[in-house]
Amino acid sequence: MNNHTTQPATDATIVAISTPPGMGGIAIARVSGPEAIDIVTRRWKGTLLTTMQSHTAHYGQVVDTAGALLDEVVLTLYRAPHSFTGEDVVEISCHGSRWIQQQLVTTLIDAGCRSAQPGEFTRRAFANGRLDLSQAEAVADVIASTSRASHRVAMNQMRGRFAQRLNELRDELIRFVSLIELELDFSEEDVTFADRREVVALAQRIKQVIDELAGSFDAGNVLRHGVPVAIVGQTNAGKSTLLNALLHDDRALVSDIHGTTRDLIEDTVNLSGTLFRFIDTAGLRHTDDVVENMGIDRSLRAIDRAQLVLWVIDATTAPEGVNAVATEVLEHAVGKQLIAVVNKSDLAPVEPVQDMLATLLPADARITTMSAHDEEQVKELERLIVEVAALPQVDDDAVIVTNVRHYEALTRAGAAIDRALQGLESGLSGDLVSQDIRECLHHLGTITGAITSTTILNSIFENFCIGK
Amino acid sequence: MNNHTTQPATDATIVAISTPPGMGGIAIARVSGPEAIDIVTRRWKGTLLTTMQSHTAHYGQVVDTAGALLDEVVLTLYRAPHSFTGEDVVEISCHGSRWIQQQLVTTLIDAGCRSAQPGEFTRRAFANGRLDLSQAEAVADVIASTSRASHRVAMNQMRGRFAQRLNELRDELIRFVSLIELELDFSEEDVTFADRREVVALAQRIKQVIDELAGSFDAGNVLRHGVPVAIVGQTNAGKSTLLNALLHDDRALVSDIHGTTRDLIEDTVNLSGTLFRFIDTAGLRHTDDVVENMGIDRSLRAIDRAQLVLWVIDATTAPEGVNAVATEVLEHAVGKQLIAVVNKSDLAPVEPVQDMLATLLPADARITTMSAHDEEQVKELERLIVEVAALPQVDDDAVIVTNVRHYEALTRAGAAIDRALQGLESGLSGDLVSQDIRECLHHLGTITGAITSTTILNSIFENFCIGK
Repeated sequence: MNNHTTQPATDATIVAISTPPGMGGIAIARVSGPEAIDIVTRRWKGTLLTTMQSHTAHYGQVVDTAGALLDEVVLTLYRAPHSFTGEDVVEISCHGSRWIQQQLVTTLIDAGCRSAQPGEFTRRAFANGRLDLSQAEAVADVIASTSRASHRVAMNQMRGRFAQRLNELRDELIRFVSLIELELDFSEEDVTFADRREVVALAQRIKQVIDELAGSFDAGNVLRHGVPVAIVGQTNAGKSTLLNALLHDDRALVSDIHGTTRDLIEDTVNLSGTLFRFIDTAGLRHTDDVVENMGIDRSLRAIDRAQLVLWVIDATTAPEGVNAVATEVLEHAVGKQLIAVVNKSDLAPVEPVQDMLATLLPADARITTMSAHDEEQVKELERLIVEVAALPQVDDDAVIVTNVRHYEALTRAGAAIDRALQGLESGLSGDLVSQDIRECLHHLGTITGAITSTTILNSIFENFCIGK
Repeated sequence: MNNHTTQPATDATIVAISTPPGMGGIAIARVSGPEAIDIVTRRWKGTLLTTMQSHTAHYGQVVDTAGALLDEVVLTLYRAPHSFTGEDVVEISCHGSRWIQQQLVTTLIDAGCRSAQPGEFTRRAFANGRLDLSQAEAVADVIASTSRASHRVAMNQMRGRFAQRLNELRDELIRFVSLIELELDFSEEDVTFADRREVVALAQRIKQVIDELAGSFDAGNVLRHGVPVAIVGQTNAGKSTLLNALLHDDRALVSDIHGTTRDLIEDTVNLSGTLFRFIDTAGLRHTDDVVENMGIDRSLRAIDRAQLVLWVIDATTAPEGVNAVATEVLEHAVGKQLIAVVNKSDLAPVEPVQDMLATLLPADARITTMSAHDEEQVKELERLIVEVAALPQVDDDAVIVTNVRHYEALTRAGAAIDRALQGLESGLSGDLVSQDIRECLHHLGTITGAITSTTILNSIFENFCIGK
């Protein structure tokens, strides 16, 4: 598909467990490479695999190196190029005992396989032109996605939507270069003026698309890592109770996902298909205690990082409690979304607090009253958070950049096209402008992998899980 | 295959993730039941599944309830009765994101599936005569097996070796009943004497087989749960260092297996294919401290539970250190295998300690010297432990009972055949003897599931993992 500058896929046949680590009903060992079928045949008692068609499943036995029965399995055969990697692939579905999984891999290595490196199956799919690099990277994002929104963005990228936009850009840039070179060819004949106007318009259009893509990175970041929400307020206002109530629903789902922040004061939760990252902060109160003040400083910095601030107010200590911290909260919440949560509404009248807040808060802040122990009211707050967060809309065709590497390449491509534009405007000669365009093309090419190096590929795929 | 007294499999089509929980390269959702193909078709964009042959794999897209793309997948089709459950089965291999796994199950439930209960796929395989009950139970044992020996025993049972032995017994018992009934038929004609000798011999043979099977349970228990090894000795003799060294090799493998004892003083490790369960004990020394004495009492009880005792001796504190605890260690180690480990051999001369122990220990005890920090010497100790443990030999055809339910049924069957034998010897009438034989047949039938109840089935399968 592309002319990769990478080394071709090695000749080794590789093996790894592709299902999640641990014990389960079944597990899958994936074998890929030119000798996949021959190597598995050495450990197989069943139908003759070499004569079997692609995309067929076969029941039989796998034996270990000594010839003893290891497991009764079903294997599925995929013949090159009609497989994930583009090579011959055998997937062996064994009983999901850790011991069997380990022995299965070991005996296939004895039979001639090499243990697969992290992401090596996907890397081979890239090397064999089954995916471009941005699609290959999206495979890891799809696997790591924990919400509807991040899943959709990753899925669009994996399916090549981003690659398609980049290819359209590439075509425009090549047209740009050809126009510039036309100018060079005819420079003696005074065709410069008309062409310059056209190429400037083209460069501006390209610049706009690149800026849009790079600009989507903030939204992409939020989708991928969660909308940061700071929970602030006085000590004992009920912040931790509220956080626990918010996390309750699917904490089990989120909690053991690889890479989720596990420190005590930060946790992610999936609300209505979007990931939120809640940051519990130390209570705010005026104190001379040095250590406590350090905690409060950290709380204030957490507010600075947040996109949305939940100010939890204890109805039983208002109005003094509100006044004690209002200045600091409001100062740090400038430019952010703010929800004032009047808590403990079951223990004290809330109307005076509401009235007080109405005069205190900016017009776009929201005020809600609740008891953090009431499930229905917690759900109500969740709906309010989703509503207020004004989430980036991700429609089916959305191309949103979530990858730092892509963002940096786009930034560099944008700078190159900027230089080209300045060159055009200052009447720079066509061959110099052409150099900037070629640099822009280069940076875009690093995203799709049309231009890449072993070092870049290594750094990309080493972060994959083994077996993918 | 058998006439089950269970209710037939329900008509529902069931779904569950069958691969280990968590994130991985790929995950498998398994769908089984009469509507499996129709239900999956409702969420499928790809080849027309209803016309596809059994054992074929198909690339396509799964959409969610709203029709939006959920994932690009490969599904494999198995048509009844040629599947694990004996029903139509579709296995969907999706990207191993937790979010996708959850959504995939959810949308298939929306489309008409029911969420599978633990072990429900295997239960259906049993209900459809694909496995007898002892084989179905062995599926869970195969998945839980953590060593070569426990794997082999479970695999033999799953493949029906145990069921075969039970069926042979059943045939003999039925022959027994027919001989007894022959006697009844001809009781007027004085054929009793010859027949009684033959039936007594037959009953004794049956009794012997049942006793052998029941007697294998001790070995089975050791294979399944590990050979219990107590590490005892004075405080600071290096017990914990030694335990850590022994656990080092594959602690990662064993540590997160479901059900492994995780308290601080007990851990399992796989040495040469057999599971050992090491029990670290509080140091033994004479003290008036009440709490410390409670710890020492616990240590002594741990020795009582062990099959092998590792007495760790500090070479630098001998001979006083040996004398201080020798009486207690030796008293509790009676009837067990004993290895005296003279530790810290790099810090003090070991010959005097060896000589002292040679006179102190029983003749079959072993004495070894080492430093727990020396990897080679730890490996040497591992070899010694495997050698001394005199492990039950498990050959390829071994039938070893590992299941308490089976052991209890065999014990009851043995008691019934005992009564039959006594009845024969005391000249009891044939119809009364015949009753005992039928009771014996009944107990054996509960093992294979020829005789069973919903209550028993529920209690068996509720301990399976979901998805199996």
